[in-house]
Amino acid sequence: MTPDEFRIFGHSLIDWIADYRAGIRTRRVWSDAKPNAVLEQLPSSPPFDPDSPQNLLADLEQIILPNISNWQHPMFYGYFPANSSLEAVLGDLVSSGLGQLGLNWAASPALTELEQRMLEWMQQISGIPNHMKGVIQDTASTATMVALMSARERSTDYALARGGLQAESQAQMIYFSAQCHSSIEKGGLLAGFGKDNLRIVPVDKNFDLIPAELEKMILEDITLGKKPCAIVATVGGTTTTACDPLPEIGRIAREYKLWFHVDAAMAGTAMILPEKQHLFAGLEGADSLCLNPHKWLGATFDCSLYYVSDPEHLVRVMSTNPSYLQTSTDGQVVQYRDWGVPLGRRMRALKLWFLLRLEGVTKLQSRIRRDCENATWLEEQIKNSSEWKVLNPVRLQTLCIRHVPNGLEAVELDKHTLAWVNEINSSGAAYMTPAMLDGRWMVRVSIGALETTREDVMQLWALMQEAVQR
Amino acid sequence: MTPDEFRIFGHSLIDWIADYRAGIRTRRVWSDAKPNAVLEQLPSSPPFDPDSPQNLLADLEQIILPNISNWQHPMFYGYFPANSSLEAVLGDLVSSGLGQLGLNWAASPALTELEQRMLEWMQQISGIPNHMKGVIQDTASTATMVALMSARERSTDYALARGGLQAESQAQMIYFSAQCHSSIEKGGLLAGFGKDNLRIVPVDKNFDLIPAELEKMILEDITLGKKPCAIVATVGGTTTTACDPLPEIGRIAREYKLWFHVDAAMAGTAMILPEKQHLFAGLEGADSLCLNPHKWLGATFDCSLYYVSDPEHLVRVMSTNPSYLQTSTDGQVVQYRDWGVPLGRRMRALKLWFLLRLEGVTKLQSRIRRDCENATWLEEQIKNSSEWKVLNPVRLQTLCIRHVPNGLEAVELDKHTLAWVNEINSSGAAYMTPAMLDGRWMVRVSIGALETTREDVMQLWALMQEAVQR
Repeated sequence: MTPDEFRIFGHSLIDWIADYRAGIRTRRVWSDAKPNAVLEQLPSSPPFDPDSPQNLLADLEQIILPNISNWQHPMFYGYFPANSSLEAVLGDLVSSGLGQLGLNWAASPALTELEQRMLEWMQQISGIPNHMKGVIQDTASTATMVALMSARERSTDYALARGGLQAESQAQMIYFSAQCHSSIEKGGLLAGFGKDNLRIVPVDKNFDLIPAELEKMILEDITLGKKPCAIVATVGGTTTTACDPLPEIGRIAREYKLWFHVDAAMAGTAMILPEKQHLFAGLEGADSLCLNPHKWLGATFDCSLYYVSDPEHLVRVMSTNPSYLQTSTDGQVVQYRDWGVPLGRRMRALKLWFLLRLEGVTKLQSRIRRDCENATWLEEQIKNSSEWKVLNPVRLQTLCIRHVPNGLEAVELDKHTLAWVNEINSSGAAYMTPAMLDGRWMVRVSIGALETTREDVMQLWALMQEAVQR
Repeated sequence: MTPDEFRIFGHSLIDWIADYRAGIRTRRVWSDAKPNAVLEQLPSSPPFDPDSPQNLLADLEQIILPNISNWQHPMFYGYFPANSSLEAVLGDLVSSGLGQLGLNWAASPALTELEQRMLEWMQQISGIPNHMKGVIQDTASTATMVALMSARERSTDYALARGGLQAESQAQMIYFSAQCHSSIEKGGLLAGFGKDNLRIVPVDKNFDLIPAELEKMILEDITLGKKPCAIVATVGGTTTTACDPLPEIGRIAREYKLWFHVDAAMAGTAMILPEKQHLFAGLEGADSLCLNPHKWLGATFDCSLYYVSDPEHLVRVMSTNPSYLQTSTDGQVVQYRDWGVPLGRRMRALKLWFLLRLEGVTKLQSRIRRDCENATWLEEQIKNSSEWKVLNPVRLQTLCIRHVPNGLEAVELDKHTLAWVNEINSSGAAYMTPAMLDGRWMVRVSIGALETTREDVMQLWALMQEAVQR
């Protein structure tokens, strides 16, 4: 494709995306596609001759659009906001267009230095302790895994330089609460720890980790000859917005020399609100921290920020330095390839740059504040309605709810819960995620799509009240 | 930003990218930026009020463009082609614009099924054995790490479900040649193996792994009570295009029950040429395979394909299944979240779809063939010139070369090599990567940027002859 052909088709696609976003309210939220609906429409072999942009555009419209869930829809209340702001879409377009590959600093000085500065900007506005240094990773799953690998190597005094984890005589132990994201367990297992080495710490009535229980487990493990290695705390847990008490956990981590990772993947965005920063107090004791601007903030997937207190340790664990990657500026500059798993790197900082500059911090704060206020409003409606219950403290924008008609419990309650939420979800009018809490189904309402207004939340509440009456 | 504002700025950026690509020959290839050149121009704090698209565009022009290395330049002969074709740029734009997040099949049926089909298309045109199933990962570094984690778990009968790698009594061993990419060692170390467990197998004069030496090492390790776990073979090694003999390695892997991973990250693109598929003979014995369409093929970083023979094993190692990720279609569909590290996934298959449809296989084959012929042409020129040497068999598009004036050797030769290559690189007229081979510096010429013609390669050869005369 020549630059001039790119110009023509590019304009069409920009318009197509603008039309898609402008008209998104007319679409259903969650897909009702049948398995194989897309596969059946795609030829089993690629074309040998070039096809036309027109045909491709038609297929986007007829094959792709009817078979996606519309995450950017204002009535999307599922999982967490996965906001792809139009500013960030354009920043990412520039990244692909420039075709940069950050193997090392010299391979794209602007890629590295823009990333450094964006990490500093985010650090400033989020109240992240000054001594930490950050890098962009793809997802929190990867960041957590990297944190646990870093923990493993600090705890074993760099076993990777010798016989690896298998040569260690002491079992290395990891601690986290049951309200942690599934990626914590996955990261631990992938890093080579076994299920026997993962300990689930009990939570209190707010679903927050109980520090005294953590310390008890640590002491038990020490008595058994095991070695406490890492604690993963969550601020704003996926299911209930659990906020583990960082100061007490930090004290314990210091005392027993545990790696202290803080997972604020979703909730980290709220750190740009001064009135919410108290949830993150105690961060200064952390060894590592992850937050995902590709969620609520709108920086477009993938853009996960990983901050560490000791970048030298990270580099010792992650570094490779063959001759073909050495350049004359080594030592004067940051080599981000040594701060994570992949060697190649996209210019992901452009997404953040476009978002922060074109929106400005004040507008971003207003939007995040709007979402928290909408959640508080809905919480009030539910609390004032008989038969409805809010099951979690609404600290940010997620509500865990049940409708409990008189006397309904156990399996019958589960059936009722799944019936009303599935009715709304399958209608296409809104989407919320059913999930388990204390062994029973409940419904998560996660508020924060870019375009979700108070009217949308009022509409959701009306849909809910209607659905439970059938 | 409203859809209408997006439309206007989007058109400007499409034009800006088209202009950048159309005028790329007027730019220097490798950046001559000084450390901190970009940092010094970026404010230390983010703006609180919105900035204008015009200011952002001006900064792209004045801060970013002068401080990047132009990977898409026709005179880029460094590392490997990291082609970002304009077709793929647009496919990726649609991905950001739709803002899909593939947490599970239902979250975006089209994301999953388009990916399945694109993996099948690539499998067909690349001659990848039918029984393998594929998934898109970010990079070969990650794919290799996943392969070694999979090897670890098969070899230990799922130690992750018990005490992890640290509870294993036998040392698990990994084998690869010194011509393997640095990511193999890194992947092994991150997966929890130690340096003591990584064994470097000697290579022959073509830099290919010697199977008899591999078997000897395996037998030694078995005698010492260690457990051979995995062999990583390379087809088209980074430095010299080494091609390890897959059939013999496959035989050994079967006999000693090793996981057999094939790294064809760069060279895998050449599999679309029937006349090059012989290099990949023996793939049918592999447990896993990685190739990167984001390199030579042009699918825009990041787009690394990972194929496995036993997807069920992959899912057992990588799976997590909390309640909030369960949906009613589970079991009937592919859940790609369980095929890799990250939970969230971008719609990366769009890049491949756009590239394959708008170019068609025939044009892609012609371009790859053109690059191989250009490499052969340059090889002939060098072989016919006194004092110049080609150090590797030119199997695809990479030449390893030295200029050896009469009598020059050892440190003096290194100085000469670095002098002439640095002269060309710092002039901005072309870029090649200096690297070590057999303990001495040499120069890698990697041919295959999207727009590199025979005239460009002739120009490079002229520059080289000129540079050595100073």
